[in-house]
Amino acid sequence: MPSPPQVGELTPPNRTLMGPGPTEVHPRVLRAMGTPLLGYLDPAFVEIMDEVQALLRYAFRTDNDWTLPISGTGSAAMETAFGNLVEPGETVLVPSNGYFGGRMGKMARRAGGEVVTVDAPWGEPLDAADVADAFDAHQPDVFGFVHAETSTGVRQPDVPALVDIAHEHDAYAIVDCVTSLGGVEFRADEWNVDAAYSCSQKCLSCPPGASPVTFSDRAREKVLAREESSGSWYLDVAEIMAYWGEERSYHHTAPTTNVYALREGLRLVAEEGIEHRWDRHRRMAGALRAGVEAMGVDPVADESYWLPSLTTVRVPGGVDDAAVGDYLLDAYDLEIGGGLGDLAGEVFRLGCMGYSARPANVAFLLSALGDALDRQGATVDVGAGMAAMRDRLAE
Amino acid sequence: MPSPPQVGELTPPNRTLMGPGPTEVHPRVLRAMGTPLLGYLDPAFVEIMDEVQALLRYAFRTDNDWTLPISGTGSAAMETAFGNLVEPGETVLVPSNGYFGGRMGKMARRAGGEVVTVDAPWGEPLDAADVADAFDAHQPDVFGFVHAETSTGVRQPDVPALVDIAHEHDAYAIVDCVTSLGGVEFRADEWNVDAAYSCSQKCLSCPPGASPVTFSDRAREKVLAREESSGSWYLDVAEIMAYWGEERSYHHTAPTTNVYALREGLRLVAEEGIEHRWDRHRRMAGALRAGVEAMGVDPVADESYWLPSLTTVRVPGGVDDAAVGDYLLDAYDLEIGGGLGDLAGEVFRLGCMGYSARPANVAFLLSALGDALDRQGATVDVGAGMAAMRDRLAE
Repeated sequence: MPSPPQVGELTPPNRTLMGPGPTEVHPRVLRAMGTPLLGYLDPAFVEIMDEVQALLRYAFRTDNDWTLPISGTGSAAMETAFGNLVEPGETVLVPSNGYFGGRMGKMARRAGGEVVTVDAPWGEPLDAADVADAFDAHQPDVFGFVHAETSTGVRQPDVPALVDIAHEHDAYAIVDCVTSLGGVEFRADEWNVDAAYSCSQKCLSCPPGASPVTFSDRAREKVLAREESSGSWYLDVAEIMAYWGEERSYHHTAPTTNVYALREGLRLVAEEGIEHRWDRHRRMAGALRAGVEAMGVDPVADESYWLPSLTTVRVPGGVDDAAVGDYLLDAYDLEIGGGLGDLAGEVFRLGCMGYSARPANVAFLLSALGDALDRQGATVDVGAGMAAMRDRLAE
Repeated sequence: MPSPPQVGELTPPNRTLMGPGPTEVHPRVLRAMGTPLLGYLDPAFVEIMDEVQALLRYAFRTDNDWTLPISGTGSAAMETAFGNLVEPGETVLVPSNGYFGGRMGKMARRAGGEVVTVDAPWGEPLDAADVADAFDAHQPDVFGFVHAETSTGVRQPDVPALVDIAHEHDAYAIVDCVTSLGGVEFRADEWNVDAAYSCSQKCLSCPPGASPVTFSDRAREKVLAREESSGSWYLDVAEIMAYWGEERSYHHTAPTTNVYALREGLRLVAEEGIEHRWDRHRRMAGALRAGVEAMGVDPVADESYWLPSLTTVRVPGGVDDAAVGDYLLDAYDLEIGGGLGDLAGEVFRLGCMGYSARPANVAFLLSALGDALDRQGATVDVGAGMAAMRDRLAE
C-alpha cells in the first residue's frame, strides 16, 4: 500500500509554446482561472453560460442554437460531432491526408459507421473533384473533413465547395476547425457547415478542457431523430443541451474553471474583433513564414493552402529533428512540434496562435530556430531571415 | 450573424459552496492553476503525470497500475468505468436507491448491457442479502454500486461484503466514490474493488475537469480482452493508458491546468495524511450533524450509514425548501443543495468536503441555516445547535 508520496511545489519550467498546441495561455485567462467556483445552477453561473454561448456563436460566425463547450479536450468535441451525427450502418467519408482525418475514421467506426476515404498526400489539401468522385462511388451519409490539419499545417482552402458536394448528395458535413477557430477565417453559417468543433488551447489561448462545438438546425434534427442512442452518455449532445439550453436540467457538473477560461479567451476575441484577429494571425505568421523562407528553410504548404496558425517547414538535409527540438527546449525553454505520421522526422511544426501570434514570439522563435539549425550544421542565413521577418512586420 | 457580444469582466458573487458539489477550491489549488502550460509530452509534464498517478494511488489506497485522471468531469470517469468494463450483451446489476445508481443503468445500457436492479429505498443503503438474491436471480457480469450517494447522503457501510458477493459469482464490482474519495474511508485494494471512479470537485477541493479512476489488474485484463471496441474513443481507457503509461504515445491533449489542480489537491491529501483527512471529515461533519439535530432538524441517514461528506436533513414541516435555498444565496452568498428524485422537496443536502470541512464553514452554515429556517417559521433552537456543534468540535 502506498505511503504518502513526497511531491513538492509545482514549479515547472517556464516554456514558450510555439508548437501545434497547447499554446501559451493569455495572462488574462490565467487570472480569470483564479476565480472561486459557482454552483452549476447558480443564477450567476447560468448567466456565464449564456455569455459563453453568445461569444462562441460570434467566434464560429453562426446563429446555431446548439453552440456550446463540451466538457473535455478537443477530441471530446470531435467525438461529440461524430458520435451524435453518425448512426449505426451509415457510410462516413473521411480524408487520408493527415492524422486527424484518421482519427475521424476511428470515431466514426466506434459510432457504428462504415468508413470510406478520399485521398490526398499528407501536406496537401483535398481536391474537390476527388471528393465529388468519392461521393459518387460511396454515397456517404456523413462527410468529415479538416479545415486546419494540425499534423500538416494545411488549410483546406475552399470549405463551402466541399460542403456543397455533401449537400448535393443529401449528406452532412462535419468540419474540424481545432487549429483555426479564433485564428483563421471560418464561417459556419455562410459556409453551410452542419457541425464544427474546436478546442480551447490553440487560437483561443486557453488551457485545454472545454471545447467548442456547433450543430446547425439541420444537424440537430438528425440527432434528435436518432432511433438508437449514441455510444456515449457523457457526450450525448441532446442531453447536454438540456443543461446548456433553456431547460437547465442537470446533466453533469460543468468544468467551472475551464468555462471561466473560455469566457475570458472568447472575450479577448470579441474585443479584438474576429476579422482583425484573423488578419493578425496572417500578418504574424506571414512574417514567420517569410523569415524561415529567407533563412533557407522550405515551408511544406503552398501559400494558397498555407495555415497561418501552424506553419510546417521541411527539416533541412542532414539535420536531426529531435536534436533541434531538444536543444530548443533545453537552451531556450522553447517548444516547437515535430512531424507526425507520414511526415515524421521530415518537418517542424511552428505554431503561431492566439496570444503567441505577436512580434515578440515570432522574433524569438525565428532567432532560436536559426541558432539550433546552425548548430546542427544546416546552411541557414539567420540575418536574412530576421530582415525578411522585420520587413513583413513593418508592412 | 452575431456582432461582438458585450461581455464584461468576470466578477461572479463570492459564494461559499456547502452543497453536494462543486465545493470550494482550496486557495493553493487556485494558485497552482495560474501556472503557465507545458506541452503534453514535455519531460516536465510527464514527471507531473507520474506524480499525479502516485498521489492518486495513495488517495485510492491502491497499487493499481491503471490509476489516472480522466479528462472530463466525474461522469466522464463513471462512463470510463462502465463503458470499458461492460461488454455488449452482458448483464449489469445497479442499485435503485439513489440518483447515481440510475445513471449507472443509463451508461450500462449505452455500453450494450442488459440492466437489472437491486432495490432499496432512497435514503437507505443496499442490504447485502438483497444483493446476494439479485445475483442468484440475474447472474450479472458486472455489479455497480455507490459508496457515497450524492443524492441521499447515504454511505454504503460494508463495501467489501458487496464486492465479495460479486466475486463469488465471478462478476466485476464497480464502485462510485465520487463523494468519498479523499474525505471518507475508501480502500480500493483492501476491499478488492475492480474499478472505482471519483471526481475532483468534492473532497479533493479542486475544480471539476480531471476525474480519478482506478482499474484492478483483473479489470484491466477484462478490458484488454474485449472483442468489440468500447463505444467511446475519448473514454477508451486502454488507449488513454498508452499516454499515461510507459508508452507515452499521444492520445488526446491532457487538460493541463486541471492536472495541475489535481496535483495540488492531492498533494494536500498526502501532506495531511489520508487517515487524518477521513478523521477530519468525520469530526467536522459530526459537529455539523450534532448541530442540526440539536437545533431540531432530522438527519435522513442513520448514523451507521451516514456519509460525513454530505449530510442530508429533512426539510422541517411547513418550510418551503426553495425559499430557504434562495434566501441563503441572497443573504449569505451560501449554497446548499436541495433534494433530487424521490427526495425532491423533502431534504436539504449539506456538503462538508475537503477545504470546506473546517470550523469556520460549519459554524457559518449552521448559523445561516438556523436563520433561514427561523424566518420560514420553523421551530428551531439555533442556540442549542451552536452549543452542540461547539461541544463536538471541542472533543
